[in-house]
This record gives sequence, C-alpha cells and structure tokens, in this order.
Amino acid sequence: MKNFEFYNPVKIYFGKDQVSKLSTELLPYKKIMLVYGKGSIKANGVYQKIMTALEGKDVIEFSGVEPNPAYETLMQAVNLAKKENVDFLLAAGGGSVIDGTKFIAAAIKYEKEDPWDMLSKYEKVTDAVKLGAVLTLPATGSEMNSGAVITRKSCNEKLAFGSPLLFPVFSVLDPETMYSLPDIQIANGIVDAFVHITEQYITYPDRAAVQDAWAASLLKVLINEGPKVLKNRSDYDANANLMWAATMALNGLLGAGVPTDWSTHMIGHEITALYGVDHAQTLAVVLPGIMTVMKAEKADKLIHYAENVWGISGAGKDEVINAVIAKTEEFFVSLGIKVKLSDYNIPEDSIDLICKKLAGKKYVKLGENKNITPEIVKQVLTLRK
Amino acid sequence: MKNFEFYNPVKIYFGKDQVSKLSTELLPYKKIMLVYGKGSIKANGVYQKIMTALEGKDVIEFSGVEPNPAYETLMQAVNLAKKENVDFLLAAGGGSVIDGTKFIAAAIKYEKEDPWDMLSKYEKVTDAVKLGAVLTLPATGSEMNSGAVITRKSCNEKLAFGSPLLFPVFSVLDPETMYSLPDIQIANGIVDAFVHITEQYITYPDRAAVQDAWAASLLKVLINEGPKVLKNRSDYDANANLMWAATMALNGLLGAGVPTDWSTHMIGHEITALYGVDHAQTLAVVLPGIMTVMKAEKADKLIHYAENVWGISGAGKDEVINAVIAKTEEFFVSLGIKVKLSDYNIPEDSIDLICKKLAGKKYVKLGENKNITPEIVKQVLTLRK
Repeated sequence: MKNFEFYNPVKIYFGKDQVSKLSTELLPYKKIMLVYGKGSIKANGVYQKIMTALEGKDVIEFSGVEPNPAYETLMQAVNLAKKENVDFLLAAGGGSVIDGTKFIAAAIKYEKEDPWDMLSKYEKVTDAVKLGAVLTLPATGSEMNSGAVITRKSCNEKLAFGSPLLFPVFSVLDPETMYSLPDIQIANGIVDAFVHITEQYITYPDRAAVQDAWAASLLKVLINEGPKVLKNRSDYDANANLMWAATMALNGLLGAGVPTDWSTHMIGHEITALYGVDHAQTLAVVLPGIMTVMKAEKADKLIHYAENVWGISGAGKDEVINAVIAKTEEFFVSLGIKVKLSDYNIPEDSIDLICKKLAGKKYVKLGENKNITPEIVKQVLTLRK
Repeated sequence: MKNFEFYNPVKIYFGKDQVSKLSTELLPYKKIMLVYGKGSIKANGVYQKIMTALEGKDVIEFSGVEPNPAYETLMQAVNLAKKENVDFLLAAGGGSVIDGTKFIAAAIKYEKEDPWDMLSKYEKVTDAVKLGAVLTLPATGSEMNSGAVITRKSCNEKLAFGSPLLFPVFSVLDPETMYSLPDIQIANGIVDAFVHITEQYITYPDRAAVQDAWAASLLKVLINEGPKVLKNRSDYDANANLMWAATMALNGLLGAGVPTDWSTHMIGHEITALYGVDHAQTLAVVLPGIMTVMKAEKADKLIHYAENVWGISGAGKDEVINAVIAKTEEFFVSLGIKVKLSDYNIPEDSIDLICKKLAGKKYVKLGENKNITPEIVKQVLTLRK
C-alpha cells in the first residue's frame, strides 16, 4: 500500500425528505444563490421543497447550467453572485450543476486575471465561497468530493480542477428525486460510477486489501442494483443503493493508497469536448479499449476483477481477461449505452484529432504507469471505431 | 435503507514516516499536551519521532493512561491542562489513549459539576479542546470517530460518550508502529475490529447493498490479513491492511443507514468493568452467545455472513448458521483469544451480577430490536460460562 492522505469533511444527509435539513444548515448564511439546470427540479418538486426549507432567507437564483457545464454560462453566475454579495452557493441537480457551482465558488474569489487559468494553467484555488448541494442524479460523485470538470466552448476544452476549499459543506441525497429522471440519465450514472471505480481499481496490485475489496464489491452493487432501478424506477432501496454507491465511488476512499489510472476519463473528456457525446457514453466507448490495449500491465487486476466481480475464472489468463472485457462491454450495452465511436457518428479520422489534442496537454502520458502515449490512445480508439 | 446522516472530518495521514506531518498540522496551536500510556512509545521510537516533529513547540506531557482509561487518571490530566492553558491535545497510542484524550478534551471545557456526568447522565458536550492522534495500535477505530469509552474505577463503571466536537482534527496511522506490539494486542485488535463490524452488519436485512458488501469484505480482510500480521510481524502491507481495516470498521460508514446491535459491546463493557478482562476478549466471549441466542432474528444476516465471508452455504438454514457461529469462535481461538468466561476465571455466579448491573442502565434493552433483556443476557452468558 502507498502512503496517502485522506480527508473528506462533507456532511451527508441521506434519505427521504432530507431536503428539510437545509433550513438549519443554511442558518449561518445571509445571501444564498440557488444554482440549477434547465428546470427539471421544478418538474420533480425538488425546487418547491428547497424553497420551503429556505423560507425567510434571502435567495437569488441562477438557472440554465448545462450538462458539461460551460465556463461561458458560469461566468454569468459569477458576475451575478459578486453583484449580489452572495455568501453561500446551493447547487441543486446532478454532477454538472455541482461541478459548475464549485467553479462559481472559486471564480468569485479569484483575484488574478481569468478564472479559467485555474483549469488551463493549474493556478491554485486560494479562496472560495462556501457551497452545498442537493443531488438529484447519482453519477459523478461531485456531491462528496472537491473536484470539478468544466468545459470552455470557445476552445473545445473540457478540463478538471479541484481544491479542498471546494468540498460541499453538506450534500442532501434523496433517492426519491431519481424517480423522474429519464432512463438514459440513470444508465449514464451507472456507467460513470462504474468507470470511476475501475480507474482506481484496475491498475496493478499493491496489496491494498480494503481498497480492492471495496472497489470490487461496489462494482457488484452497481451491476446488481443498477438494472433494478431501470426496471422499477420507484424501487426506493434500489435507487438508494445506486445513489450511495455512486457517491462512494469517487469520494477519495477507493483511491487512497493505491495507483490510479484516469486515462479513460482523460480520453473521454476530449471526445465530449469535440463532439458533445455524454460523458458516461465516452467512458463506455473507451474503457474496453484501454482494458484491451493495456491488458499485459493490468493483467493481475483484470483477473481480480473477473473473479471477484463477475465470478469468471479459468485456467487461461488470456481467456479470463478477454471474457471479462466482453462482459464489461455487454453490461454497458444492457443498460442501453452504446459502446463504439461510430454509434455516436464520430468518424474514424477524428481519432487523430483527439490524439493531437491530448498530445498538447501536460498530462500527455496517461495511466497508472504514465506510459499511455497519444500513439497508444490511437490504438485504443482504433479498436473502438 | 434507513435515512441517515454521515459526517467524518478527520484528516488521515497514512503510511511510513507520516508522523513528520505533525509539524505543519500543529502550526496553529500554542501549547500542546502530549498524552500517552505506559511508555511503549518510548521503546518503539514513536515518542522520539513526535518530539522531532514538534521541535520548537511548547509541549507538556501526560503519561500513564491505562488500558480502559480511568476517569481518576484522566482528571489529573484535565487539571494539568487547565493549569497550563493547553490549546491542543495530541494522543499517542491505541484506542485507550485516544479515548482518554477525548474525555480530557471535553472535560477541560465542561462547566457544570462533574465531567463524569457526560457519561453517566448523558450531559451534552458543548465545547472541547481540539485534539489529534498518532495511532500505534489498530483496534478501536477511535482515531477516526467521535466516541470514547471511559472507566470509573470507584464505581466499576465503563461507559461511552461522544460528540462531533471530539473528532480528532487529524490522525497519523503508520503501520510500522505496530511491529513492536505484543502479539496479544494485535490479536485483540483484530477481534475488536471484527466485532465492530458484526455489530453493524449481523442484524436484519434492510436492503443496504453497499453497507452489507463493505462489512462482509472488511471481515474477510481481517480474516485474511490478521493472521499474516501475527505470522510475520514486520510484513508492512499486512500491517497496513489491518490498520486501515480497523479504522474503516468504526468510522460511521458501515453503520450509516442500517440497524445496529451493540449488545455484545454493552455486555462486554460490564465484564471488563467488573473483572478487568481485555475489551476484545469480552467480545470474543459474548459474540458467539448473542449469535446463538438471537439466531432466529438474525437468521438472514447470519446466512449472508456465512456465504459472503466464510463461503459456507447449504440446504439447511440451521446447519449453516451453526457452522458459521462455530467458525467465528474458531477464528478467535486461532488468534490466541479465549472465548469462555471460565477461561478468564469468571465464576458462573458472576452472571447474575452482570445482568443486575445492566438492568440498572438506561439501555437495559439491547440489540437492533431493543429486545435483549437482562434475562436474555443471562441465557447468552450461561452459554458462554
């Protein structure tokens, strides 16, 4: 096991009607900005519950945060929040809204030139407005971590940043808010959480028994409970299990003390930035390719995954690995997620463009061994055309 | 799954030489009291490492905190800390030292009559001096939770209390500090962590998939890694896995959203208070008895435990349950822990005394269904005589 630091101070309110806890959590704050998306929280009743809990507080609203939250949109919120002297940001939505709110929180206090530099030039976050979240879509884990991914449309960039200052003070997770989500968002959420886990698990063995066992068992929860949610959208416990699993998938626990990969995410971000494909769908395309091309390095962990998650074992290492890669792909397809670039109308000649964009980045060498070069990415994507 | 709140802001520094991080963590504090036990930290070098990290700081020491930390001892530390205007308490040791330090932290700020009332009369902790920990013995999980158990010798009482104000600000977990522990302390630690998990797991099913899977897999880690530590005391990764598993066993995650039992602990505390038996050893005595007497209520979870932890399955429910109870007892014995009251020279007629003491407590009805009466405790202990 590697040395590590673990810190996660997010207070979680989990369960039915926990939105009511907002009223006490927000007592210390004077002016709250409620940040949300395109208005689904109005259709599913979450908006009304929030407003009831905030009765008597000074609240302004910023709506219209899009999937893959855009710098261009968020800067409007930053300007509004500064003008209105907002001292707390309340995100209500999925990972995009929460990620966007983290950017707003840091950008309000950013005193150098362009807040985008926190992403493009790794400028440090030195201060941030406090934030909290009401999660309505389990997927990204943003509700219980300190990172965010933001897109800048004008330059087709999708970049990540983070800071301990960006942990939500609290997050409310009410599984009932999931009932009205479109099926595709549930499926995307399952895949997103799934790949968060594999990025921290399917690397090389480092004798980290708790982390490996918890990663494998969390994948099994997604495999067992995800389809139950899709089959019966108002199965409370199945929704609750999916929501909690997605939160645990990226709150720092699984990655503590072990090598991590993240190449599937980095490649996926480029695909989304260029072609607008849903984040989770890019992951479903890329992951089987990474597993295949990197199978020699990942062999021990692919076999651990095969045995402990899917119950696949056998004499031949290679057969086991091929079988579990196929199984992974089948699982994504069973959720209704397509797994090839061509399924999303991405032409084969886009592969060079994606690789070229990656080659221009600081993190040009991806993977747990920092040896996934743009050339290897090309092999991966060619397999997934 | 039940509604729950989860909050755990403890910062963990895990791994070799992480004690050096004390120097930055303690920057904000002026006067530090180092609290430790009987001096094993001087023999194993931890004391020297701490002092090196604290060079230039104003440090006073309080040593002599005993296993089952005593109110009588701790009040001396409270008086010293008040006199010296201590603003940070640094615990260095196992669960007893950390628990004791939590009591000191709250007692310094307690303004009513007797700080013992926080335990005996459930008086609320309203303020506490900040504390941190350097863990040297994995077992209780105190390094990453906000609870503590304190013994008052004068009245043979061992009681628990807790408050969010008593979370350590940070805890340093260096597995190398375990190398010099006596084998019996390692074995006790394994059993203590094991029973922390069963108390939150072997109750009744509530469709909490993550919690159940994580509990089962954490038990497997203890079963696999614990004996490795005992066999090769300087196997770094085995020590690291045991240390991290024990911390995860009682940091709030496993019990979030599920029913919890704690009857084994409550009965065990009475045995320790009356007869001075090591905490973990009381748990090893009581747990198989609770499993046996409560087997009808716990049947579904005992079967989950049998299948998922020990790989025991079969047609007959009763055979599976009996087999897994026997297996649990065998595991404790294999670690060198005795499992009967008579092994600790506790006479049969003590059972009535133990039950009488429990009958006088607010929590007279124990267990996840609050139906374990003193009469049932008598059955349990009679089985374990």
